[in-house]
Amino acid sequence: MHEHEHPIAAPATALAPSAISVIRCSGQDSIELVGQLFRPADPFLHAPGHTIHHGTLTGTSGEAVDEVMVALFRAPMSYTGEDSVEIYGHGSPAGVRRILEALYEVGFHPAAPGEFTRRAFINGKIDLTRAEAINDLVNSQTLEAHRLALDRLGGGVQTAVEAVRADLIALMAQIAIQLDYPEEDTGEITLDDNLLADCAERLRTLAASYRRGRLVQEGVSVVLAGRTNAGKSALFNMLLRQDRSIVSDLPGTTRDYLEAIVDIAGMPVRLFDTAGMRSAGLRSVGEPIEEEGIRRSHVVIAASDLVLYVLDATDGMSDEDRHRIAEIHAPVVLVWNKTDLTTAEPPDGAVPVSALTGSGVAELNERIFLVAAGDGGAAAVGDGGCIGGASPSGVVIDSARQHHLLTRALESIEHTRASLGRSMPADVLAVDLQDAINAIGEITGEVATDEILDTMFGSFCVGK
Amino acid sequence: MHEHEHPIAAPATALAPSAISVIRCSGQDSIELVGQLFRPADPFLHAPGHTIHHGTLTGTSGEAVDEVMVALFRAPMSYTGEDSVEIYGHGSPAGVRRILEALYEVGFHPAAPGEFTRRAFINGKIDLTRAEAINDLVNSQTLEAHRLALDRLGGGVQTAVEAVRADLIALMAQIAIQLDYPEEDTGEITLDDNLLADCAERLRTLAASYRRGRLVQEGVSVVLAGRTNAGKSALFNMLLRQDRSIVSDLPGTTRDYLEAIVDIAGMPVRLFDTAGMRSAGLRSVGEPIEEEGIRRSHVVIAASDLVLYVLDATDGMSDEDRHRIAEIHAPVVLVWNKTDLTTAEPPDGAVPVSALTGSGVAELNERIFLVAAGDGGAAAVGDGGCIGGASPSGVVIDSARQHHLLTRALESIEHTRASLGRSMPADVLAVDLQDAINAIGEITGEVATDEILDTMFGSFCVGK
Repeated sequence: MHEHEHPIAAPATALAPSAISVIRCSGQDSIELVGQLFRPADPFLHAPGHTIHHGTLTGTSGEAVDEVMVALFRAPMSYTGEDSVEIYGHGSPAGVRRILEALYEVGFHPAAPGEFTRRAFINGKIDLTRAEAINDLVNSQTLEAHRLALDRLGGGVQTAVEAVRADLIALMAQIAIQLDYPEEDTGEITLDDNLLADCAERLRTLAASYRRGRLVQEGVSVVLAGRTNAGKSALFNMLLRQDRSIVSDLPGTTRDYLEAIVDIAGMPVRLFDTAGMRSAGLRSVGEPIEEEGIRRSHVVIAASDLVLYVLDATDGMSDEDRHRIAEIHAPVVLVWNKTDLTTAEPPDGAVPVSALTGSGVAELNERIFLVAAGDGGAAAVGDGGCIGGASPSGVVIDSARQHHLLTRALESIEHTRASLGRSMPADVLAVDLQDAINAIGEITGEVATDEILDTMFGSFCVGK
Repeated sequence: MHEHEHPIAAPATALAPSAISVIRCSGQDSIELVGQLFRPADPFLHAPGHTIHHGTLTGTSGEAVDEVMVALFRAPMSYTGEDSVEIYGHGSPAGVRRILEALYEVGFHPAAPGEFTRRAFINGKIDLTRAEAINDLVNSQTLEAHRLALDRLGGGVQTAVEAVRADLIALMAQIAIQLDYPEEDTGEITLDDNLLADCAERLRTLAASYRRGRLVQEGVSVVLAGRTNAGKSALFNMLLRQDRSIVSDLPGTTRDYLEAIVDIAGMPVRLFDTAGMRSAGLRSVGEPIEEEGIRRSHVVIAASDLVLYVLDATDGMSDEDRHRIAEIHAPVVLVWNKTDLTTAEPPDGAVPVSALTGSGVAELNERIFLVAAGDGGAAAVGDGGCIGGASPSGVVIDSARQHHLLTRALESIEHTRASLGRSMPADVLAVDLQDAINAIGEITGEVATDEILDTMFGSFCVGK
């Protein structure tokens, strides 16, 4: 426990100009090594943990590199469980680079992606579900995604699966007793099938939350298509305007009414307006080249998860519309726009909206979520405009790894129950039950190999 | 001194997914207000300054918003000189937004750009030259720019100008005595003209460093132009390859061999390859549209600070080249490329290089800097490949504000000296000398109005 590994350092904030940048250091001798570069070194080197010090960070030849604050943390009271230092400098990419160079010169190694969190796991500070939640939290694009990740960070998944695992271990003990005392063998295995069924049900509910979790965390891309003047841009603007909870534009996203990220029922949706696209690619130099824009639209539509095909309700659906819709491979939601101007009946399955007044937009959002989820039955819009599908405990998972292991555990439990029904011998039941216990153990990291850890933490950012 | 103003809060790190995000809080009751949202509140609320605490940041209704570390600083031992708190959360834009909302609900105001630094200035923690250096430091794009900004943050400019100001005040005292005791008036003002000349010289040297400072801090845009097959792309790649000290790509910059930031003699240069531009605008959809690419090249060339016109030494300069060069309005550097293939004499003023072997590239870099500086005499490449032009103290300024005030002070000193030479009365000398003293006082902020501060801090980022 609380091993001291070789010292590592990495930037923990984005390499962009900002007020403050943070560099994280952890491992064997990390306080002493930073002390070689920090002036005044003396109160810092012998200070208690959880104190913060003002001074100058220097290079190895003593030249000032930045004016900084440094916080020190003494094992095991730190994020990693090791001795650690955090350096708060001016938010200058150049400064961060100079500080890192100095740290590497005195003996720090560049941290691998997720290495700080991996050490926290190895030192028993967090389980794997919390480690994954940290990554989700950082990458959450909507407030709903952030809320769900925070629940997992609080131990929601860990608590739920460890409770099931404890029950399964108790059941295993029942089998073990009967294996250990075969002389008492009545030919009939005594095992609480109700408890087994309840365990399966709890895992099933958690596994079922995966679809919602993934949609809320990952999001989908949605393209607006339709004839000129159907009101695509008006609808695009309406979907942007009613959005109150998107947290930030993704890097590279320009809110130029061509492409934007909007929050639809807690799900980050990358929304494209093909009307805007007609000219956007060439806008900076003047005249648009119309054919080029149309070709670009086709590329975007082909790559999308869902197409909103906008119809003008005052004009109806034409053969051209039917032809265009037939060419789209992605799921299509028909939007019957301009209901403020006409009472014409929409075609089958079309969602009546008015991009002008906003009427019908809430229903459209719900439809988008349901089609994105690929299953109108399992998910439903719940409280606060957010989509349902959480487990009764409220915990929602989004990890493909966890979902895979839950599925494996479920299969093993169902095998056990089937064997029990067919009065199979105790050792057969034990094998399946043990596999369920192991699968759940892998979820939290109770059972973990280097390979599992390499895969998991490899997807983290450096500095995490 | 150390006033407590109303509490302010702002993000201090970029709103991008990262390991850690920092939110800065300062002002009256800021510790108590954060305490309303931080669990456990108790050790935190009564802890000494410069301590750091682990816990949960909640919303006003008590729900967890993030797991955080909070550092508290007690006045006057803080960045602003006020009671302050820094919150280190997970680097999630969604989380930062939720935390800020909670902070605003309990009474924090959103901080104006540069407001933390403005308060640091008002509370006497730093002068205006250091405040400007903080902004420069954050925005420095090369290691050289970072180094020069750090010198200014260390007080290089402040020390230099305050020494001059002290000398001028001493000279003012000489005049004042003669004004106060007119009965001793000999008709001749006694004033140390050598000292006056020395003051002017020191200010002049500092003012002269402005050109270099501005180039290193701001940089220039340079376009590669020339006929097809002259070797533009090869030269572009060579300029990228030999670059060892650029600190980061600017936002939006893709190193796709179309546009890149390179460090030329400490100066950040945004380099455009018009050859790459031919197809880049439309690359994502397949075939390039050649005419469009050529039109885009012309737009980029027209907006550039300098054009490198690349000639193929094996082919010489053609009438087409002369025609194209004549059309360029920006300063042009002729590059005589492919010297590895021929010993042909370059045209007048052309720099012979081989983009293949790298021969001549150092000379080309120097020429780029000198032409960018607009003066081959004043600036010269000095130690370590960096361009000279620093004052003897090594301090280099980059602030237009400081340069303007230095120029005003210089003019006033020269007026004073001229009046002295013409034996003008003491009160005439006093007016000019006082203006020089005032101008220097404005540089450090010894003399500052709200208007000056509004202009200066308005260019800062929020959270600084």
